[in-house]
Amino acid sequence: MLRTPVIEIADGLWLKLELLQHSGSFKVRGAFNRMLSAGELPESGVIAASGGNHGLAVAFAARALGARAEIFVPEVTSPVKVAGLAVLGAHITQTGAIYAEAAEAAAKRAAESGALMVHAYDQPEVVAGQGTTGLELMEQTGGVDTVLAAVGGGGFAAGITVGTSAGEGGGPRIVAVEPERIPTLHAARRAGEPVPVEVSGVAADALGASRVGGLAFEILSGDRVESVLVTDEAIVAARRTLWERHRVVAEHSGAAAYAALLSGVYTPAPGERVAVVVCGSNTDPATLTTD
Amino acid sequence: MLRTPVIEIADGLWLKLELLQHSGSFKVRGAFNRMLSAGELPESGVIAASGGNHGLAVAFAARALGARAEIFVPEVTSPVKVAGLAVLGAHITQTGAIYAEAAEAAAKRAAESGALMVHAYDQPEVVAGQGTTGLELMEQTGGVDTVLAAVGGGGFAAGITVGTSAGEGGGPRIVAVEPERIPTLHAARRAGEPVPVEVSGVAADALGASRVGGLAFEILSGDRVESVLVTDEAIVAARRTLWERHRVVAEHSGAAAYAALLSGVYTPAPGERVAVVVCGSNTDPATLTTD
Ligand SMILES: Cc1ncc(COP(=O)(O)O)c(C=O)c1O
Ligand SMILES: Cc1ncc(COP(=O)(O)O)c(C=O)c1O
Repeated sequence: MLRTPVIEIADGLWLKLELLQHSGSFKVRGAFNRMLSAGELPESGVIAASGGNHGLAVAFAARALGARAEIFVPEVTSPVKVAGLAVLGAHITQTGAIYAEAAEAAAKRAAESGALMVHAYDQPEVVAGQGTTGLELMEQTGGVDTVLAAVGGGGFAAGITVGTSAGEGGGPRIVAVEPERIPTLHAARRAGEPVPVEVSGVAADALGASRVGGLAFEILSGDRVESVLVTDEAIVAARRTLWERHRVVAEHSGAAAYAALLSGVYTPAPGERVAVVVCGSNTDPATLTTD
Repeated sequence: MLRTPVIEIADGLWLKLELLQHSGSFKVRGAFNRMLSAGELPESGVIAASGGNHGLAVAFAARALGARAEIFVPEVTSPVKVAGLAVLGAHITQTGAIYAEAAEAAAKRAAESGALMVHAYDQPEVVAGQGTTGLELMEQTGGVDTVLAAVGGGGFAAGITVGTSAGEGGGPRIVAVEPERIPTLHAARRAGEPVPVEVSGVAADALGASRVGGLAFEILSGDRVESVLVTDEAIVAARRTLWERHRVVAEHSGAAAYAALLSGVYTPAPGERVAVVVCGSNTDPATLTTD
């Protein structure tokens, strides 16, 4: 794993550039942790379902560890991500409209093949692995009051919540950011349990889980966590600003957390120290100026 | 100025991400240093000639200091850079085919207006300012044996040479990298003095000085400095690799130093600690996948 850099873009405001991570997102942290915790891997290797980034991460980690990787992605997965999977030598099956359907197919196949399932968000080793992002950013910034992170199935934000809990006062506030068009955590907090939501919008190929993970829901129900929603327009604008002002090329999901800040959905208090995790870069840079 | 991050992309190999700097290149370091060293600025403000990046930096610094900025750029300057100058509120004159011609026009205008000339590379304050890049990277990496940096008029590489000289043994080796199609330092070292060269190729709007600066030539004639050439093809390939493998979007000049390493023009010894400065990002990201 890379210790990805942080940049301080204003006084007390940091971007954690996790999109510079191997495979283009934080997902390798969880993938490696799950695979290395499993002891010897089965001969049939590892298997995963993914909107794309988790698949890229599992394929990357599998290649590094010399294991076979079988990846199930839905139709919504972008061509850039499918191409990346092929380059990494993964066995790819594209099936189902959205992540949940690809996940069902992958579970069925895993039961046949005996491959190790590396879940995209709902396994303790995966959540713990993602959490190292939070640990790192606390060290690199000297500590912050608030961390903004994007939510799909919730493994990332949950990991960061756990990974930053060592600080005094139980750690920083976690602002869990979701697109309005995929409000898994929002809906779950309202219902008191994970419930399915409709999946659509610009970030659907990364934040497109149909419901928040059980493990993530427990962790993200804590007092330190605030759940907010951003519009697709705010995500597109934030992605453009990240390039124009900061020379960082993020995919839409990777810009969602920053969108919460730029659009005013989350407004820090004066003097509040804030870190925003910019978490994915598997995108066609040409779309930056066109969409 | 930002303290731009470094990332360790292989054991003992760092990229200094100076392309994340304000205005998209290291040039603000020299621009601020020159302007702050001048004491009070004249009412006519500051003036500069530039392939684009230096102009963007001077315009950025002028805006920050509340001064008027007049920028002369040649026809070779990319539309992205001209648009950026306009956004920063600079007074823009586009004249002459290449940098040297714009520079002549700017010098004439400065003599009339009394504005403070901020030279793109041949002033001590500018060279010293750029050199802080070298100081920073030595601190951030814990010290390296070799630094690779691109050369246009030579102010950047000269600054880094000076800025890293505090180390034992007089500091690291500096590999000064130029495109084959704009070999200003190479030609000067051969002739024993700065001489004009033809200017062309993919990096002409940033490394397109017609001759190396007098100050830079003196500094870059030292024993620690090695002068190498890279092809345009190697630059294009390095730029693409920076995106595909490291998620960094550089302009061509910004990828030149890395091209020397990737193409084998400079080959480190086993165990040699190397830093490559990736120094400019003022480019249309759409061109990454098309050219
Ligand atoms: C770039 C990016 N950000 C955020 C997420 C959301 O992570 P999680 O599903 O753990 O909430 C994903 C998931 O694929 C992602 O790829
Ligand atoms: C991105 C970039 N790299 C390198 C250089 C070369 O700097 P110098 O002219 O000081 O050699 C320039 C000059 O404009 C530049 O813009």
